[in-house]
Amino acid sequence: MQAGKPILYSYFRSSCSWRVRIALALKGIDYETVPINLIKDGGQQLAIIEYLEETRPTPRLLPQDPKKRASVRMISDLIAGGIQPLQNLSVLKQVEEKFQLTWAQNAIISGFNALEQILQSTAGTYCVGDEVTMADLCLVPQVANAERFKVDCTPYPTISSINKRLLVLEAFQVTHPCRQPDTPTELRA
Amino acid sequence: MQAGKPILYSYFRSSCSWRVRIALALKGIDYETVPINLIKDGGQQLAIIEYLEETRPTPRLLPQDPKKRASVRMISDLIAGGIQPLQNLSVLKQVEEKFQLTWAQNAIISGFNALEQILQSTAGTYCVGDEVTMADLCLVPQVANAERFKVDCTPYPTISSINKRLLVLEAFQVTHPCRQPDTPTELRA
Repeated sequence: MQAGKPILYSYFRSSCSWRVRIALALKGIDYETVPINLIKDGGQQLAIIEYLEETRPTPRLLPQDPKKRASVRMISDLIAGGIQPLQNLSVLKQVEEKFQLTWAQNAIISGFNALEQILQSTAGTYCVGDEVTMADLCLVPQVANAERFKVDCTPYPTISSINKRLLVLEAFQVTHPCRQPDTPTELRA
Repeated sequence: MQAGKPILYSYFRSSCSWRVRIALALKGIDYETVPINLIKDGGQQLAIIEYLEETRPTPRLLPQDPKKRASVRMISDLIAGGIQPLQNLSVLKQVEEKFQLTWAQNAIISGFNALEQILQSTAGTYCVGDEVTMADLCLVPQVANAERFKVDCTPYPTISSINKRLLVLEAFQVTHPCRQPDTPTELRA
């Protein structure tokens, strides 16, 4: 069925691309990156992750239990549908320049307020229990966006500590925006 | 496992609630409605639909084929993550009043431009092939929002004709915002 290496149209800074890069890394799928200078993105990349999960089930990114799966998807949708679309580039460009930072911060803060509360009841080592799930793929890129927009994350101890535990994992390291083919030299690490 | 009737916290006008109401109607699940005067919504309700799909697989709202499932999820995410969050109440309230209508229209138009093109390659009778899928549950409430915001839908013949075919189905009729327990009298039909 699979003809050749899959191609990921990616933008180093896009949290949507990063989510998918982590999924590919976790599942050990070799792929080619075609950098796209960001035109528009949204929550859409969850469809790619669900597709990967269905066609390459190991390691699983969704728990087996339907209620836990629902928690994972709820958290993923809260981030990818409730926070990220409001602070992405195409929306910010429509906001008057002097209000852009506040706009992005408000979107993230109101989302993180909800997220912190949810995670307090679902989290183990990671967002839902002790295995890495799709929710974690959404969390880390969103926390990176929060930092870029200078959101103070101290009111979110659960979010922050899960993020810290995830960032040390290889799949999150190799896929980091600072290590992509299209990362500008001054942002590399 | 299932203890008692499920409760849907619903708002008659919310496209997110409507999506879930259609899923419940299609799967023949009896539920109680608790009306919530809208505080905030987002794409989150797709987690409920995926949960329903996994726990009550008949009739299916996702095709069996992984590529078609990906199409369904891509369309659903485009609407629930790419369009709806930008035109929902909590966001509009942050936009200066005289720009609110244009803001909402822009969000819908730019989303519908992409959606019309996608549907031209995926649609049969409905969004993906000839069976009702999760994508259709997202489409109808979004077209209703487009109409509310006075978006001219003539440039979207595929969207419009699928919407028309869906609106005659019982599950879409009984769940319509004009027939909910919290629908104000002047909006009933």
